[in-house]
Amino acid sequence: MGSRRPENPDISKERKTCTFNPLELTFLLDGGRRRTKERRHMENYFLLDPELKDDVPIDYLSHKEKYEEAVRKACILHKKYKEFQKVTGQIDISRNGVMTHVTNSIFKDGYPFYLNTIMFAPAVIGQGTPEQQAIWLKKALNYEIIGTFAQTELGHGTFIRGLETTAHYDPRTQEFILNSPTLTSYKWWPGSLGHTANYAIVVAQLHTQGVCHGIHLFIVQIRDEETHEPLPGIKIGEIGTKLGMHTINNGFLGFENVRIPREHMLMKYSKVLEDGSYVRSPSNRLTYGTMIFVRVVMLQHSAFYLAKASTIAIRYSAVRRQCTIKPGELEVQILDYRTQQYKLFPYLAASFAIRFTAICSWNMYSEVIAELEGDLERLPELHELLCCLKAICTTIAAHGVETCRLSCGGHGYMTCSNLPSLYGFAAGACTYEGENTVMLLQTARYLMKAWQQAVGGMAMTPTVAYLKQAISGNNGLQYWDNSTACIVRGFQEVAAGKIKQCAENMSKRIQEGFSPQDAWNMTSIELVQCAEAHAHAFIVEKFVTSVAEFNASVSLKTVLTQLSDLYILFSLLHNSGDFLMYTNMKPVDVSNLQNQMEIILSQLRPNAVGIVDGFDFHDETLRSALGAWDGQVYERMFEAASKSPLNKDPLNESFQKYLKPLLKSNM
Amino acid sequence: MGSRRPENPDISKERKTCTFNPLELTFLLDGGRRRTKERRHMENYFLLDPELKDDVPIDYLSHKEKYEEAVRKACILHKKYKEFQKVTGQIDISRNGVMTHVTNSIFKDGYPFYLNTIMFAPAVIGQGTPEQQAIWLKKALNYEIIGTFAQTELGHGTFIRGLETTAHYDPRTQEFILNSPTLTSYKWWPGSLGHTANYAIVVAQLHTQGVCHGIHLFIVQIRDEETHEPLPGIKIGEIGTKLGMHTINNGFLGFENVRIPREHMLMKYSKVLEDGSYVRSPSNRLTYGTMIFVRVVMLQHSAFYLAKASTIAIRYSAVRRQCTIKPGELEVQILDYRTQQYKLFPYLAASFAIRFTAICSWNMYSEVIAELEGDLERLPELHELLCCLKAICTTIAAHGVETCRLSCGGHGYMTCSNLPSLYGFAAGACTYEGENTVMLLQTARYLMKAWQQAVGGMAMTPTVAYLKQAISGNNGLQYWDNSTACIVRGFQEVAAGKIKQCAENMSKRIQEGFSPQDAWNMTSIELVQCAEAHAHAFIVEKFVTSVAEFNASVSLKTVLTQLSDLYILFSLLHNSGDFLMYTNMKPVDVSNLQNQMEIILSQLRPNAVGIVDGFDFHDETLRSALGAWDGQVYERMFEAASKSPLNKDPLNESFQKYLKPLLKSNM
Repeated sequence: MGSRRPENPDISKERKTCTFNPLELTFLLDGGRRRTKERRHMENYFLLDPELKDDVPIDYLSHKEKYEEAVRKACILHKKYKEFQKVTGQIDISRNGVMTHVTNSIFKDGYPFYLNTIMFAPAVIGQGTPEQQAIWLKKALNYEIIGTFAQTELGHGTFIRGLETTAHYDPRTQEFILNSPTLTSYKWWPGSLGHTANYAIVVAQLHTQGVCHGIHLFIVQIRDEETHEPLPGIKIGEIGTKLGMHTINNGFLGFENVRIPREHMLMKYSKVLEDGSYVRSPSNRLTYGTMIFVRVVMLQHSAFYLAKASTIAIRYSAVRRQCTIKPGELEVQILDYRTQQYKLFPYLAASFAIRFTAICSWNMYSEVIAELEGDLERLPELHELLCCLKAICTTIAAHGVETCRLSCGGHGYMTCSNLPSLYGFAAGACTYEGENTVMLLQTARYLMKAWQQAVGGMAMTPTVAYLKQAISGNNGLQYWDNSTACIVRGFQEVAAGKIKQCAENMSKRIQEGFSPQDAWNMTSIELVQCAEAHAHAFIVEKFVTSVAEFNASVSLKTVLTQLSDLYILFSLLHNSGDFLMYTNMKPVDVSNLQNQMEIILSQLRPNAVGIVDGFDFHDETLRSALGAWDGQVYERMFEAASKSPLNKDPLNESFQKYLKPLLKSNM
Repeated sequence: MGSRRPENPDISKERKTCTFNPLELTFLLDGGRRRTKERRHMENYFLLDPELKDDVPIDYLSHKEKYEEAVRKACILHKKYKEFQKVTGQIDISRNGVMTHVTNSIFKDGYPFYLNTIMFAPAVIGQGTPEQQAIWLKKALNYEIIGTFAQTELGHGTFIRGLETTAHYDPRTQEFILNSPTLTSYKWWPGSLGHTANYAIVVAQLHTQGVCHGIHLFIVQIRDEETHEPLPGIKIGEIGTKLGMHTINNGFLGFENVRIPREHMLMKYSKVLEDGSYVRSPSNRLTYGTMIFVRVVMLQHSAFYLAKASTIAIRYSAVRRQCTIKPGELEVQILDYRTQQYKLFPYLAASFAIRFTAICSWNMYSEVIAELEGDLERLPELHELLCCLKAICTTIAAHGVETCRLSCGGHGYMTCSNLPSLYGFAAGACTYEGENTVMLLQTARYLMKAWQQAVGGMAMTPTVAYLKQAISGNNGLQYWDNSTACIVRGFQEVAAGKIKQCAENMSKRIQEGFSPQDAWNMTSIELVQCAEAHAHAFIVEKFVTSVAEFNASVSLKTVLTQLSDLYILFSLLHNSGDFLMYTNMKPVDVSNLQNQMEIILSQLRPNAVGIVDGFDFHDETLRSALGAWDGQVYERMFEAASKSPLNKDPLNESFQKYLKPLLKSNM
């Protein structure tokens, strides 16, 4: 795994006693033995290149140096990728995922060109005409330009309709004139925007022939291609330091009468003709596509953050020994403590839950996209589903990464564990691409409509079909037997029960004289909880059915089933109040299920290291002194500390300058 | 408040409609009008000094520069403090708290001399003989030396008895010889240790006359007073970058035959005589004192972190407008969204809960300390109580700070909000000075004993007296009426119910043949939950009784009562499963209490800004573009971004060096 140290005997022992073959899990997750081989080849090709490594860990650099170092590496990586493509010939689409993975490994605090491929190019594909795609997609994918996507403004994130940037069409010159009329209208946040990108897709309010037609997308050149100087009328810079993702180069952008050709408005759907007349898009549903795509990608990433954090924390816990359980015995591997298992294994399981949720979502997305030209009926359902899944999965991932970090005690607080950086990514995902509470309320709106349809006896779409069952069951709740199938249905009963309660509370408030909008706001805490319950019901069901469908050896299947059972028990016990209220589960069941969960923790214990080995993370991907394959935690921590520039000298010059005069003056 | 900008009208409006006088709250929290005046004077004296401000926010500096800048400021601050003492004459002990507050404001990422006062000096007081105190206390408090406290090792944090550093007594020279026999025995983590301190109190295994007597404390000079070079045999450096607290200068330290005089062992209790004979301490309870003291201080700090984060998030939420509730109306202050209130107000309330818990703990501590020379009976109870309170309060604070941060959407991710830095402190507290799970298990052990005593009909100490009631009530649970008094008792019933259940599970497992130690480990998830429930019961009761006892105006008392009611309802609803299991609360009560909680949220809404104004935080303490007094969020965010060194030039040199060659090569 890229390390030459001998393994720590504690971790070797774990590998010897594992009851299944981790490589089988690796093949399963990669999609086959050939894919694993290809991925490993590609990872080694890039990740072992000394030019792409950091001499001094970037955590020690200044903010400016971090950025410069990231640009340097990004340019090297890009050249190397072109060479790789030449050598290996035809591009296999499955490599895209691996390349993202490689990029994330090399740029542990963010890839400064990321927005070009994840946002600029997809927006051109989604919203550009064939002619526009021919021009801009080639330039972007070929890295002749670097693009970004500028939507969010200082004053507007969630409320896109409220964006203030304007684009007025001038038919005399056939140009749009862009302006930032207020301080709050400045674009704020787009990655790559600060000092990297020279083009941006800008979301602005389109005005033509004296009418505002709402927000549209425009390609705007922001920097000179030769000099990289900001073009006239462009006010641009970076927004400053953040909790994490330090090298994404988030920027701000203001316009003062910036003119762009008419052809720079993306016109696949809506159009502005030469004379300034506006042609409306046939459907606004079409714009859902990119949002759904990005959120499915976010689920995949959330699963990765959690898998990485679990790997680091579980390997560390296998090596770290602390206290004795029985006096006089050897200190215990902390992984043997039940409380430590309870911190780590449920989130290890959650990483699988989110991964399988992402796969199911991706499959649904692919199916719907295939139908896109024809029947659009399933698009809203998928959109609403992804809203709550994005919210719940990013929340679980952030909380899980932090739990893993805390489980490593003080050492998890060090950046050499890489856990703080992972938390930076996982936590960021809770607010970008749709703030999580807003996302849940979006789903809740759909659920309220679905409830009315269910009550009205209408046909239900698959993801909310359980509402129908809840109603047809005439509220007589199912018999409770603590089985997996029963618990999965229990999650649906909880969701249905909460949705019903919300619908009733809404009606009651409206009957009391509140406007529907005020009633909505007054009920919103519970509406959020509805959407959460709906998401949990989906995740739990997909986890259980995915595992059941896998074609795997008995030994691996056993482990995967333990993980899905653990996940559903953990989730249930965390919401036991809901189950006591909305299902036939009784207090005595809670104790039994707690006991059942504890048994699974002990069953998973001998395989914990094997499971995270199965993720097959390269050491250069984990970048963690605590989580490396060899388990040589303490040596690696010391090695990491030795790289601190402060440790280059036995004392710091601040002693002579400041400290000595102070101490002497006090004697 | 140190700001010259006009107030944002949205925040002025909040201040006008507040129903109570925030200044009354300020006086209450400070302990009187005179104290407020003194505090403000002191804050302005230090916080407005331009020499103590950062030209460039330290977030932009390299790790090394951050440290150097912190030492520079620390030395200036110290001189200024001496001047302040001269001018104002006699030192008022109540100023210590204010000075800590000032220091925390100036060093937003940690004060590099902190360990000298918070650990070195108290350890000398607690463990040193009068002669030792006379020498070392003067030197430390007068800043003739800078001390630190070196206990934790790379391989040992929780398990102090397992520390590996050795101190062998050599009677020929009457010296101790310190050694670090292994890599894992290196001291690791102590603040100030890296490059700042020149003395350390070192915790090491004492060996004399061939016998190991366990860990003891030794004063060790680590750097030359003239040159600051590490002394012979001392291997020292800093441990590297972390999630937060960047300028605390945590270090590592190893010993190779380092000799120190016999008199450098702290010998208030245990002693080594000249000939090497060992005199045992009369009681090991005496060492509890410092631990309890530090944990009470941590409660105070946790309350502060949460109060600061609440202030920032609530002021921002009063100014931030996003979306409309009713179409066509003005965009809404996000503080009007019920979901936003639900994120912020419970943690605002929690900051009071923790503050009052800290005050009660401090009072108990003072009482017990007053008895210390005589009756030590109450010390274990206080120690066990502080273990679970430390764990619960730091956990709530960390979670609350992060919830506040997330409630600010993307902007809370920026360091100019100061929320990431606050999270760094709050999260750090969860693992240092006793890892939280270990702390809870410590309390649980006490609770298991207490349960046996209650069952055996023995007299109970005050904090566990409720167990007796639970037993004498013959398990017939109280009638449930949703009142505050009923809920407070409900928290005790939950704790008692869980403690009873744990005791039964332990017995059952022992009867099944497991050793008591294995049974303990198997039951530990539930044992942790017992200690949590015990802590919650304590906090809730103290919050309610503290508010009831306050001598305040009706208008202020109303607000404080709303806060305590909100806190208990929020905590109950988050653990509704427990209440359904262990009290007479019924599912229908849950809906009613949810409704009651939502009403309190709306009652607190008009006073939210007033309450946080009442904390009276100086803008230089908050250091937040989102949370400043004037509410000029967007101007301040822009101003903060303009300080980024990357924004000094319109383009970065990485363009010519790296980016341009790449883009050109692709054309």
